[in-house]
Amino acid sequence: MRPAAPVTSSRDLPHPAREEIRLEGVLHALSDPMRLRIVRELAAGAGDELSCSHFDLPVTKSTTTHHFRVLRESGVIRQVYRGTAKMNGLRQEDLDVLFPGLLASLLAAAGRQATRLGAAG
Amino acid sequence: MRPAAPVTSSRDLPHPAREEIRLEGVLHALSDPMRLRIVRELAAGAGDELSCSHFDLPVTKSTTTHHFRVLRESGVIRQVYRGTAKMNGLRQEDLDVLFPGLLASLLAAAGRQATRLGAAG
Repeated sequence: MRPAAPVTSSRDLPHPAREEIRLEGVLHALSDPMRLRIVRELAAGAGDELSCSHFDLPVTKSTTTHHFRVLRESGVIRQVYRGTAKMNGLRQEDLDVLFPGLLASLLAAAGRQATRLGAAG
Repeated sequence: MRPAAPVTSSRDLPHPAREEIRLEGVLHALSDPMRLRIVRELAAGAGDELSCSHFDLPVTKSTTTHHFRVLRESGVIRQVYRGTAKMNGLRQEDLDVLFPGLLASLLAAAGRQATRLGAAG
């Protein structure tokens, strides 16, 4: 018998360290309407973590999982398991240290566009 | 013999109108290191148009052409023929009207990253 692996670390998901985050990767992550919507919802939550199941996106579950993975691997969000739920939070501090003002500017642009196009604000 | 086509209009390149520009498209355009570099050089030129041949990118000519096309079709740059040269300019006013402050914020982030990674500023 193998010794039981520590319950938490075995399910840890890979994240780039702050210094590994690249602007190009962040912009690629935000260049998709669904991913931009996820980030806007997380930002509106004022720092609260949201579970993947909170998001009701008009795409399949596997596509949703893909979008969260792109956001995690680019350094835009942090994903952690809490019990059976995968929880998501914006890496606001990391992004603000690397690129001061950028996230706020991107969110403002996204909000402005949503208003202009008549989508849900 | 066919009548000669008007020299200018026959070579006009398609551009999105300002209201057709989408944030997602702009971010996708800027999510590539070569395209980000082109935009930084255009921004450093303070409104001056630069010819494609001005840019000495470490990629093939056809890849360079592709990058300029992505930038044009997303609404980030305007490309016009002047004589035999294809000239490129940032659509700064259009972007500033749609997304106030975003371009400046993106350029600042790109500059900060270049400094941090020790690339040519």
